[in-house]
Amino acid sequence: MEDLIDKLRTFSKDRDWDQFHSPKNLIMALSSEVGELSDIFQWMSEEQSKLNNIDPKSYELAKEELADIFLYLLRLSDKLGIDLREESEKKLKLNGEKYPVNLSKGNSVKYNRRDE
Amino acid sequence: MEDLIDKLRTFSKDRDWDQFHSPKNLIMALSSEVGELSDIFQWMSEEQSKLNNIDPKSYELAKEELADIFLYLLRLSDKLGIDLREESEKKLKLNGEKYPVNLSKGNSVKYNRRDE
Amino acid sequence: MEDLIDKLRTFSKDRDWDQFHSPKNLIMALSSEVGELSDIFQWMSEEQSKLNNIDPKSYELAKEELADIFLYLLRLSDKLGIDLREESEKKLKLNGEKYPVNLSKGNSVKYNRRDE
Amino acid sequence: MEDLIDKLRTFSKDRDWDQFHSPKNLIMALSSEVGELSDIFQWMSEEQSKLNNIDPKSYELAKEELADIFLYLLRLSDKLGIDLREESEKKLKLNGEKYPVNLSKGNSVKYNRRDE
Repeated sequence: MEDLIDKLRTFSKDRDWDQFHSPKNLIMALSSEVGELSDIFQWMSEEQSKLNNIDPKSYELAKEELADIFLYLLRLSDKLGIDLREESEKKLKLNGEKYPVNLSKGNSVKYNRRDE
Repeated sequence: MEDLIDKLRTFSKDRDWDQFHSPKNLIMALSSEVGELSDIFQWMSEEQSKLNNIDPKSYELAKEELADIFLYLLRLSDKLGIDLREESEKKLKLNGEKYPVNLSKGNSVKYNRRDE
Repeated sequence: MEDLIDKLRTFSKDRDWDQFHSPKNLIMALSSEVGELSDIFQWMSEEQSKLNNIDPKSYELAKEELADIFLYLLRLSDKLGIDLREESEKKLKLNGEKYPVNLSKGNSVKYNRRDE
Repeated sequence: MEDLIDKLRTFSKDRDWDQFHSPKNLIMALSSEVGELSDIFQWMSEEQSKLNNIDPKSYELAKEELADIFLYLLRLSDKLGIDLREESEKKLKLNGEKYPVNLSKGNSVKYNRRDE
């Protein structure tokens, strides 16, 4: 991931885009990209959204959107000085404690923030 | 990233959560997490959102949200069989052609999807 | 809707919140509320999300989120001097031309912005 | 608003689109539209986003997006049997109690869901 972060820094520096990349703005850009992803999948059924069923055109679009989301997420983490991998490891461990296997088995409700 | 993807697989399998993790559902989960990130930053000015200015409480919350977003993004990519790094490299190259340095310098408008 | 818009003006004025209600910030607030709505519905199947099937707790939460979204949407329109009803009438007419009945019947793909 | 809701019903019925309009799907459509709104405003400063400063092209786009959001919000409320106006009145009253004038004056932090 470090090399991608570096490339994004250079990309922005070359275009003098750092002035636009406040964390607040990057979060709006991230929202916009996730909105585009929703747009691709909104009328699909769950079954239609799966790897073996999804239509080729939507699949190609999804690839691009996932890339865009990842690039903005890396850029945002970089601007906030946050180590994405480290924080994700921590969060996953936390989730493991919050949703113990025996209590969470097959239970999507527990997964819900509102029930925490 | 491979190890994180593996851990997420095990995490879901242990809890029998694969049944909920259709790409469609994971995109909604991603939207929800990005919404939480917006919630943290919505009333901040751009200046207040920056690394050296952000208040400590918001910063800690932001770390967790970035982790959540990354975890769902990895899970979604895995379910769709998409290589996030490879697609991001491709997309970054594409962006380089779409926004040539000489034309895009300091110009946020060019960055706008609507002007493509 | 006028009375609600007025009440929102008074509400913000009384609390000296106008300083926070730039259109940019209100859009982030709107994103955050829509994210909360996604959070409620993310693990439901389409069938489970329907009026006759939805669980009572989620239904009550959905009511509050829809209200929040509407309130921010009214506030944002007011701040931008946009007449929501008038623009919606116009847009609906436009959509009627863009998706002629004979071509769009039962076809969700046509509904997709990407195919416009 | 009733007349708009009726028009939306007819619009969908004519095109046989009710099959796509589960609440879950409509929430994704709403997310997508709010994402488009974010896209328009993401690189603007707060000042640039205001009525007197916003560039004409963005303003026209914003009108369309606000209309789209309103139309999907009405459609979603209709499908869920929720009276948007009534719920919004209730919510506004609730907010009045949650953010008493004397404690909330000029204080955006209090406005934050996370501090409830």
